Amino acid sequence: MGMTMTQKILAAHAGLPSVVTGQLISVNLDMVLGNDITSPVAIREFNKTGKEVFDQNKIALVMDHFTPNKDIKAAEQCKLVREFAHKHGIVNFYDVGQMGIEHALLPEKGLVVAGDAVIGADSHTCTYGALGAFSTGVGSTDMAAAMATGKVWLKVPGTIRFNLRGELKKHVSGKDVILHIIGMIGVDGALYRSMEFGGEGLASLSMDDRLCIANMAIEAGGKNGIFEVDDQTIEYIRSHSEREFQVYAPDPDAAYERVIDIDLSEIKSTVAFPHLPENTKTIDEVGDVKIDQVVIGSCTNGRISDLRAAAEILVGRKVAPNVRAIIFPATQAVYLQAMQEGLLKIFIEAGCAVSTPTCGPCLGGHCGILAEGERAVATTNRNFVGRMGHVKSEVYLASPEVAAASAVAGKIASPMDI
Amino acid sequence: MGMTMTQKILAAHAGLPSVVTGQLISVNLDMVLGNDITSPVAIREFNKTGKEVFDQNKIALVMDHFTPNKDIKAAEQCKLVREFAHKHGIVNFYDVGQMGIEHALLPEKGLVVAGDAVIGADSHTCTYGALGAFSTGVGSTDMAAAMATGKVWLKVPGTIRFNLRGELKKHVSGKDVILHIIGMIGVDGALYRSMEFGGEGLASLSMDDRLCIANMAIEAGGKNGIFEVDDQTIEYIRSHSEREFQVYAPDPDAAYERVIDIDLSEIKSTVAFPHLPENTKTIDEVGDVKIDQVVIGSCTNGRISDLRAAAEILVGRKVAPNVRAIIFPATQAVYLQAMQEGLLKIFIEAGCAVSTPTCGPCLGGHCGILAEGERAVATTNRNFVGRMGHVKSEVYLASPEVAAASAVAGKIASPMDI
Repeated sequence: MGMTMTQKILAAHAGLPSVVTGQLISVNLDMVLGNDITSPVAIREFNKTGKEVFDQNKIALVMDHFTPNKDIKAAEQCKLVREFAHKHGIVNFYDVGQMGIEHALLPEKGLVVAGDAVIGADSHTCTYGALGAFSTGVGSTDMAAAMATGKVWLKVPGTIRFNLRGELKKHVSGKDVILHIIGMIGVDGALYRSMEFGGEGLASLSMDDRLCIANMAIEAGGKNGIFEVDDQTIEYIRSHSEREFQVYAPDPDAAYERVIDIDLSEIKSTVAFPHLPENTKTIDEVGDVKIDQVVIGSCTNGRISDLRAAAEILVGRKVAPNVRAIIFPATQAVYLQAMQEGLLKIFIEAGCAVSTPTCGPCLGGHCGILAEGERAVATTNRNFVGRMGHVKSEVYLASPEVAAASAVAGKIASPMDI
Repeated sequence: MGMTMTQKILAAHAGLPSVVTGQLISVNLDMVLGNDITSPVAIREFNKTGKEVFDQNKIALVMDHFTPNKDIKAAEQCKLVREFAHKHGIVNFYDVGQMGIEHALLPEKGLVVAGDAVIGADSHTCTYGALGAFSTGVGSTDMAAAMATGKVWLKVPGTIRFNLRGELKKHVSGKDVILHIIGMIGVDGALYRSMEFGGEGLASLSMDDRLCIANMAIEAGGKNGIFEVDDQTIEYIRSHSEREFQVYAPDPDAAYERVIDIDLSEIKSTVAFPHLPENTKTIDEVGDVKIDQVVIGSCTNGRISDLRAAAEILVGRKVAPNVRAIIFPATQAVYLQAMQEGLLKIFIEAGCAVSTPTCGPCLGGHCGILAEGERAVATTNRNFVGRMGHVKSEVYLASPEVAAASAVAGKIASPMDI
């Protein structure tokens, strides 16, 4: 019986000829990631070991969640991480002004390439599967141990294979694909499984689409999301990194637990209603849902393609009077490119606020929190109770296209309708 | 005995032929201002009256302090103001995406013109004196009464006259003028006095310089700061407002309590050390002060001239590795213009974070709070203990030129030295 992509990468990083689902293995890591809320916990644990870090080049510390510092506590957390980074000579420490949202930043900086094994103390670390890497979220204590040893213990996950075919229709994008899938299989539909994406439909998905899809694998309970590597992946990696990389293709007889065929051309704009990402409706089913805020950005949908898609809809239009629309470019580079392409001008002229990169409102952190009874359409990844503020507020997850159309309409709207 | 500018405006708005220092008068108001932290208190008091607002066009409510909403409490505060604005048909309600920092926004929107009498529930309401208006900060209960009646009780202030001559040297600007003055007269040097600025030196000060100087009148204890109206003022007002306006010149025999001559050409770049704005040193006296953060923006120095001055220094340079530099354009219009002039590109390429307009860190609100022991150079207006975060953090007030130079040097630096 052959191995899936994930199993092949894990076997290689465990120094084993092969692995099987359920096997416990020790995996050598290419990158260990933490942010300003998870790293302090990891650093305090790490400091108890009295050790040096395993590799100054293979740790990334990104100050993105409560930055620019929301409050004194946030400032103290960042200070602790900053001092640790300086003390241990961490090469990839990213502070305010140099940074972006971790899961957009690491691919952009070329810190993850195909074939890598990566852990991060953040659940959306699964994003890098878009590059053909194994990457998964862990707790801060796992991060602490990994900073010391360069290894992590993992149970080899089984795999659900998604065979893609067809092409997405206009104004439909990666976010709709993953919301469609989560709506189909549920928030525990891929529990501790690898979600492996491939097939002839892959070629029509941009890297930003794939990063968005892999990003939300965790929202279906997935251990990781991973995409087969094609010419587009290789071009992306070569243009962002000088590192060697290894392409792992699944064996033709890989042992999949389930195979799901997806016709991309049948996917409609999809919205996840409160309070679970699985609670999806297609845009023609949403009805009349008035909104108070729109958030476009995050590690899920804050990349240049996302901003282009939103700007295409907002150009020459105005945000509805009762809506606050907030744009969060995911990184400084995305911000700069969006500015140079005239996208930020479109946003400002439409009446949007454009923020410096931060995770901000996605996790109810800051920079766009909801009051009781308020509703937001957000391109973020979670709509749990209280996720963006008050426990009686509501988050509707959608694509940048739907979010932009909704900002203009003042209610959830299709980009085809405005 | 003649009247000062302030006395003339107050007499006209009290329906009296003349007033004298110390007289208690009821003043008819042209504008009543509140923000997202002061308005909720005023609205709750106003609601007890059961009245309608005195004039839907003469109230401005600007959501700028804890926006985009920092947390649930901030969201609830804004929601309360938003609902009040809608219920009462307040024309000048400015929400996220449409707004800016109140004291930059009102002049820009043409909501204040020469000869106006304005109160605002924010201490830096004195800013509009730059336009030849009387404006002063009040408490929320005065704001509540004024929203109902259009009037406020005031004690007519005495006046300190500042006669300006000469021209500012390169890299010296309005901020240095007002810091120099506060250093000279102290934080209570103009207690409940009007600070009236005029003289032949006026012509060389830009409107942004004057707005900055008037803005900090309160930091010398002033009831208001006010500038004589010249061609530049009139051009500014005509290009921002279609309202009629009235120019009040001081009487030649106006009863000044004190007259201070200022030679602008003698003023050096000036920095206010912790923890009072009067604690000033000229740039050649500052010594070696390492810093952690630079903040360029606020109602004091977030206008286009300020950003141009900072960009002139930052172009082609990099923010020092251990410094977070955060730029806060004061309004959406300033943001857009700075983008179109290429200033934001310069900031991003230098390694600055560019925020959406907000008061943010100036008052220790959010978006750039300091940890224990951290130091910031800020173009803001106050450096009281704990103003920008931890009680053991420090704020050094300076011009945009000094702030930008300090960001590059990693310590307080002169723009002439880098």
